Amino acid sequence: MSAPQPSAKAFVPFVSVETMMRLVHHIGIETMLVELAGAIEADFRRWDVFDKTPRIASHSNDGVIELMPTSDGEIYAFKYVNGHPKNMAQGLQTVTAFGLLAQVSTGYPLLLTEMTLLTALRTAATSAMAARHLAPKGVTTMAMIGNGAQAEFQALAMKALLGIKTVRLYDIDPQATEKTRRNLTGSGLELITCNTAQAAIEGAGIITTCTADKQYATILTDNMVGAGVHINAIGGDCPGKTELHKDILLRADTFVEYSPQTRIEGEIQQMAEDYPVTELWQVVSGATAGRRDQNQITLFDSVGFAIEDFSALRYVHQKLSGTGLSQDLDIIADPDDPRDLFGMLQRAK
Amino acid sequence: MSAPQPSAKAFVPFVSVETMMRLVHHIGIETMLVELAGAIEADFRRWDVFDKTPRIASHSNDGVIELMPTSDGEIYAFKYVNGHPKNMAQGLQTVTAFGLLAQVSTGYPLLLTEMTLLTALRTAATSAMAARHLAPKGVTTMAMIGNGAQAEFQALAMKALLGIKTVRLYDIDPQATEKTRRNLTGSGLELITCNTAQAAIEGAGIITTCTADKQYATILTDNMVGAGVHINAIGGDCPGKTELHKDILLRADTFVEYSPQTRIEGEIQQMAEDYPVTELWQVVSGATAGRRDQNQITLFDSVGFAIEDFSALRYVHQKLSGTGLSQDLDIIADPDDPRDLFGMLQRAK
Repeated sequence: MSAPQPSAKAFVPFVSVETMMRLVHHIGIETMLVELAGAIEADFRRWDVFDKTPRIASHSNDGVIELMPTSDGEIYAFKYVNGHPKNMAQGLQTVTAFGLLAQVSTGYPLLLTEMTLLTALRTAATSAMAARHLAPKGVTTMAMIGNGAQAEFQALAMKALLGIKTVRLYDIDPQATEKTRRNLTGSGLELITCNTAQAAIEGAGIITTCTADKQYATILTDNMVGAGVHINAIGGDCPGKTELHKDILLRADTFVEYSPQTRIEGEIQQMAEDYPVTELWQVVSGATAGRRDQNQITLFDSVGFAIEDFSALRYVHQKLSGTGLSQDLDIIADPDDPRDLFGMLQRAK
Repeated sequence: MSAPQPSAKAFVPFVSVETMMRLVHHIGIETMLVELAGAIEADFRRWDVFDKTPRIASHSNDGVIELMPTSDGEIYAFKYVNGHPKNMAQGLQTVTAFGLLAQVSTGYPLLLTEMTLLTALRTAATSAMAARHLAPKGVTTMAMIGNGAQAEFQALAMKALLGIKTVRLYDIDPQATEKTRRNLTGSGLELITCNTAQAAIEGAGIITTCTADKQYATILTDNMVGAGVHINAIGGDCPGKTELHKDILLRADTFVEYSPQTRIEGEIQQMAEDYPVTELWQVVSGATAGRRDQNQITLFDSVGFAIEDFSALRYVHQKLSGTGLSQDLDIIADPDDPRDLFGMLQRAK
């Protein structure tokens, strides 16, 4: 007997890397960044309904593999993501990811998708969403320290959501800066290549740090940072990996995604366990003020949280509807009689 | 510019449900059950090297969605699995699953595969592996209480690994028993349909319970179970879901996979937190005796553990080699220059 065709219930819509790229261009990168920020902000406003847990990390000498699940009671999402700073030397991505959306009531998957690109987009969207609440009013210049895979996404998100006009670029490797400059040429942003981190932050109202070394690094020292800036710290995102000198933290007001996770992974791993922080959802929901005055230093100690991936996955799932872009993946066994799994196997012989 | 082809590094071998069925028939079901039991036993012998954590469960009124990660330091594996007893009424599987194998040193996936079928196979292989250490010598008859999707796999594993000749079938729904009998006709097993659980266990040296209700049920009561049997309890596998009366546990010696998880999910959730149990790996490694005498009641309080999935995934990965059965999935973004993720996206326009 020939193999029976899987039932429709057995198929899970799958978005490959190529399909994700087509979807991004179909929507437009800047539009997508704005819409993603909106989706994330909307979910941050209903923070209470989500199952929240620090991500489940498997650490090794070379990096970390993490699972990031969450659920709002109707939809469940998780992301698989790795972080391997040494990968780049082998021609591999530091961060790769894929994710899944499922129906809570049945446990059946709704969507399986690449998330390397989607994580880059949602990380930038989250940064810009936070900056919209925390950066000084009327900011037009940002410093981008660390010009790796995340740099262009950050610059475009800050442009699209905050009207940033000038990006001051610095990386320890000039080729990385050159790559970023080349990719952003034609974006409408003024691009300034800087030779030091100090030079990059001159006149910048937003300072984004996004470097990848797995070590306690000091990308910014205290005397470099003046009053009235917003620091968007992306790269301190796992135990043993920070970017900012402790003294900067002491002068800043620190905002985080989910404090139990950030205390493990973020810049504040350098601080005492009860170091005061504000969770960003409190600002988004209006319960707490964001920036209070123009001289305040605000710090978004961002490590990435499961709810951002949930929002991004749901957004992609909605946007796919009617495009015909996804393909069907036969990943769920679904015999006609659910108890007859063995019969399905037997008939396939 | 046309979309560039993904690099070879971007492809992850994928095993669909149809491909898994072909692989099973290529190897042979009973051979595969024996080899899977061998792979699981080999990994239980090196228990110490694994990262172990109770699975991460997201509970709802309708069921549970779980992530089950583990790693031996070189290879990382996780499984996504749901358990929704009410699914069957909607024509859906109670349990569906898929899983991933990845390289710890890079975080890059090695294999993505359906695991609904593979979970059924590894669960039966684990049961039979445990029974090989715990069941009375020379046992030829088993009772199979609960004739759902797992039943035939259990019967064939006990046949292949222990030489079981007779299976006494009982289910609250006679159609389930009829389905199981039909599927096992021609397997070489003598099949006896029973009208009660009590009738099913008559003369059986192994009693397997595998029912799916999410509730505290009492499939077996104390006075039903005589001396000298091995109870293989599969269905008590999440909080609020048990199958055995507490008094049976008190007369039995209880063996578990990983006690921190089993105390949450297994039959022993009915007992005190310090209720004495033996972890199966201790028996497998020879550190502790399994069955001590012919009158002892042994109980394998099985809930399923991540290492069993790790073993099954690695086995499938090895067996696929050279078969050409898997397909390549473009799920990992991999630009030529790993820092040039944005450039890859841009060039796809």
